[in-house]
Amino acid sequence: MSPDQRSSFLAEHVDRLARTHLRELLKDATRGKRLRHRLGPLLLDLSRQKLDVAALDALGAHIEASGWQAARDAMFAGAPINTSEDRAVLHTALRASGSKLPSPAPREALDEIAETLKRIDTLVHAVGLGDASAFGVAPGITDVVNIGIGGSDLGPRLAERALAPYHVPGLRSHFLTNVDGQSAYELMHQLDPKRTLIVMVSKTFTTQETLLNGNVMRDWISRAYEGEVTAVSRHFLAVSANVAAAEAWGVPAAQVYPMWDFVGGRFSLWSAVGLSLALAIGCYNFHALLKGAALVDDHFRTAPWQENLPVLLSLVELWNRNAQGRGSRAVVPYADLLMDLTSYLQQLEMESLGKQVTPQGKPVAQSTSPVVWGSVGTNAQHAYFQSLHQGTDVVPLEFIGVVKPAHHLVANHDALLSNLLAQAAALALGKTVDEALAEAKQGSDEERRVLAAQRTFPGDRPSTVILLDQLTPESLGALIALYEHKVFMLGHLWGINAFDQWGVELGKSIARQILPALENEGANISAFDLSTQVLLETIHDRRLTLAKHDR
Amino acid sequence: MSPDQRSSFLAEHVDRLARTHLRELLKDATRGKRLRHRLGPLLLDLSRQKLDVAALDALGAHIEASGWQAARDAMFAGAPINTSEDRAVLHTALRASGSKLPSPAPREALDEIAETLKRIDTLVHAVGLGDASAFGVAPGITDVVNIGIGGSDLGPRLAERALAPYHVPGLRSHFLTNVDGQSAYELMHQLDPKRTLIVMVSKTFTTQETLLNGNVMRDWISRAYEGEVTAVSRHFLAVSANVAAAEAWGVPAAQVYPMWDFVGGRFSLWSAVGLSLALAIGCYNFHALLKGAALVDDHFRTAPWQENLPVLLSLVELWNRNAQGRGSRAVVPYADLLMDLTSYLQQLEMESLGKQVTPQGKPVAQSTSPVVWGSVGTNAQHAYFQSLHQGTDVVPLEFIGVVKPAHHLVANHDALLSNLLAQAAALALGKTVDEALAEAKQGSDEERRVLAAQRTFPGDRPSTVILLDQLTPESLGALIALYEHKVFMLGHLWGINAFDQWGVELGKSIARQILPALENEGANISAFDLSTQVLLETIHDRRLTLAKHDR
Repeated sequence: MSPDQRSSFLAEHVDRLARTHLRELLKDATRGKRLRHRLGPLLLDLSRQKLDVAALDALGAHIEASGWQAARDAMFAGAPINTSEDRAVLHTALRASGSKLPSPAPREALDEIAETLKRIDTLVHAVGLGDASAFGVAPGITDVVNIGIGGSDLGPRLAERALAPYHVPGLRSHFLTNVDGQSAYELMHQLDPKRTLIVMVSKTFTTQETLLNGNVMRDWISRAYEGEVTAVSRHFLAVSANVAAAEAWGVPAAQVYPMWDFVGGRFSLWSAVGLSLALAIGCYNFHALLKGAALVDDHFRTAPWQENLPVLLSLVELWNRNAQGRGSRAVVPYADLLMDLTSYLQQLEMESLGKQVTPQGKPVAQSTSPVVWGSVGTNAQHAYFQSLHQGTDVVPLEFIGVVKPAHHLVANHDALLSNLLAQAAALALGKTVDEALAEAKQGSDEERRVLAAQRTFPGDRPSTVILLDQLTPESLGALIALYEHKVFMLGHLWGINAFDQWGVELGKSIARQILPALENEGANISAFDLSTQVLLETIHDRRLTLAKHDR
Repeated sequence: MSPDQRSSFLAEHVDRLARTHLRELLKDATRGKRLRHRLGPLLLDLSRQKLDVAALDALGAHIEASGWQAARDAMFAGAPINTSEDRAVLHTALRASGSKLPSPAPREALDEIAETLKRIDTLVHAVGLGDASAFGVAPGITDVVNIGIGGSDLGPRLAERALAPYHVPGLRSHFLTNVDGQSAYELMHQLDPKRTLIVMVSKTFTTQETLLNGNVMRDWISRAYEGEVTAVSRHFLAVSANVAAAEAWGVPAAQVYPMWDFVGGRFSLWSAVGLSLALAIGCYNFHALLKGAALVDDHFRTAPWQENLPVLLSLVELWNRNAQGRGSRAVVPYADLLMDLTSYLQQLEMESLGKQVTPQGKPVAQSTSPVVWGSVGTNAQHAYFQSLHQGTDVVPLEFIGVVKPAHHLVANHDALLSNLLAQAAALALGKTVDEALAEAKQGSDEERRVLAAQRTFPGDRPSTVILLDQLTPESLGALIALYEHKVFMLGHLWGINAFDQWGVELGKSIARQILPALENEGANISAFDLSTQVLLETIHDRRLTLAKHDR
């Protein structure tokens, strides 16, 4: 992709740096210090981004001129910055209890949040003690199933897995997400309905996937109790803003935990949406997660841009996306426990920033969200790193590592970390034709030249390294909040509303029209486009053929 | 990205089609028929690609002029088309037993393959009967752990999960991949060492990750037998080309199954690399998988380009990547059982095609592999589809659906399929400003205009739909082979060797240099770049701090 026009103020920096290999830039220790920062348990190393101090300062000046501090303060104070829905954006208030700074959020919101946290604490405590009957929950629960999708799934799923070493014993967690019946089918074969607690998470309590899966699980539990409604209801909690709908569906109002208009789904891990996580790791660790996020909140509210980690992350993304024209960014955690981080960030970033109009309805002036993708290392090295090293496109990478693991397999962990460090170095440094030629010792000159060409690495490929001291509730909370505020900054800098998601509506509404035509072979399908018509006919035709075959 | 220069013969088609929305193209039934093809249990629908018949024929003429049939025949016949390693490429010979056409592969290779298949069959049969002592395996095995990475992991992992409904009862499968010790640690807590069979998969038997994990598991089993070497060896099989190394490590030669130079790792599912899969699904189903792949092999060898599915897939990729300049492609299976398909294809495509020099050592003339990414739907709709609908970049998508599921939750499956169809339709059709304006009924004209702008969808975004009748060993084999041959075609058309991977070497060699500096705090690190030095110092410093804290 060609760099965006609006970034023309950066053109001189792009041109200058095009003539300087990262191998050279890395030799500048002063530059390195400007690009490397610690915050509590996190080290953010941006020194392998293709920036020099002059480009960094040009970007910093651009950001300073944008009024980012006022925009940030408006968010923390609860101004309705989600303009298309006229809502405040107060996920930071959810962890205000862990902050050292007084919260500027509206008192009413803070009170509701504190009250809900207290409800979660007492419930989690009671379940931990084995008797939560006072909260409507059946005794003897061994398995918790979180039913939710998108923001009601990705955050709790990420944290539940990442914090496996912190799990309370005797309680297993499961995540039922997709409307594909396969997962529900497998869960029902695996679990005991009388020992399973379902947490239904849906802000509107109208989410198709969540209700269909909820129905399947409710029928399954109901069969175990021969349809006795009260007994069944003791296996369900709900997290929703729509108490009436949850109650009508079968969750008593006292078992519904709130969601609020001032917290978007993809920012909601810190709210009651984290209920199944809190059950998995206990209240103490859940509060530690909030505290880790609050550490970054306080930092974001007070640090100058030169030292402000979320601001620096947004600055680098602006540089890679708009000045250098990169279409995607790979997130590669060197930690199996962070296996769900990439999909979490995919949603956080692409749903927030994949927009093309401003809140005023004008086309944006530059590219917005890149594709965010990736998977854990070292696995990734044996899959797609070939292309990152020698492919035709440059893909900026983000490496995330953990200094001290949660196990004692030292040789494994050293091998893991050495690979992380080596990949970041190899991408930056590359290997010249001459170096490759010096290694090609056999064959004719022509054979050596051909082999060396294939063993040459251009290098000059940017990456970021984030090192966590350990993977703890605090460091995980800090890591997630770091990205949240980066997303806020990019929404601000790109002039888009990072907090709505109108782009998910069209597909949903067409699916509602198509469903009856799938259910009824005789339905009139002439209103659909020709391709949809042919696919519908194919599905009906193949179903018939397969049914005949079965007989 | 700007379209590639070499694709200038397509420029007139790109220009013409830039003025025609997909909404219009879809109305042409003749065009639709040219872009929709069935092969056995697969339907490939390319009708939502932004091509008309003229562009399709121009691409077809380009491919016909490329000599693709001769290149294809050379591969099937075992010519050394992997030139940088002077090797044949004979993954198709692995499934020749399922083919209706005589195999042109060398007799010697076919014989070795047949013999190995027979060894696998008899072993799998014996394990199924509960006594494989004749094959060196301990009795009472309940869990099989495949230790491998990259091509020794992704294929068996994909197929094992996809074919869960075909698993033989009483035998669970696990995949230990990453060098991160966390997974090994968890497996050891979960399994019984005396009932676990480990399959070590490494062509060279020098793969760092596989050996470290193997060592950990061997120590664990050894402790259960108080170090009795023979007893321990009965819990290990190996799949490797290096029998001596496997034997030296502790797997008796008779328990080593072969790998060959003429099969690359990412094409090796059909060989003994599929051993743990064969154990999971039984011989009958493993042969059915081969048969499904052979169906596509026969088709690829005989069908004219106009009806040749792998050729058409490569044609569309050429169009999207080089003529339209798309930097990535999203693969979105609407099937939880296919959750690993995307990461499988990521490796197959990006490791094969992420190259920038020709086999003659010249720079390529166009962009090669795009980024391949994605995850299962409908989950993906609630994560990153916002950006695919309304983001600034166009990302071609590939939807994969299954007509008949392996369970009886009909409402779930209809909802799933309706969403797949709806997303493909919504991406193509979009929603105009006028349509959005007509829906915005409240507020002032300006408010309605602003809201409508956010609810507008450009549409005109291309996608492919692949429908499988059912997810069976046959249809999965066919699906994978379809992509394999697409990759072959793109390697041929882009003028690169799709069968080597020199780009993975540099990182490995730097990791070997860094490892001692991680293990020994006092090591001399001055040879590394400054950023690596600082990261090494940070890691040692934080380890010290954390150790103090622990005391």
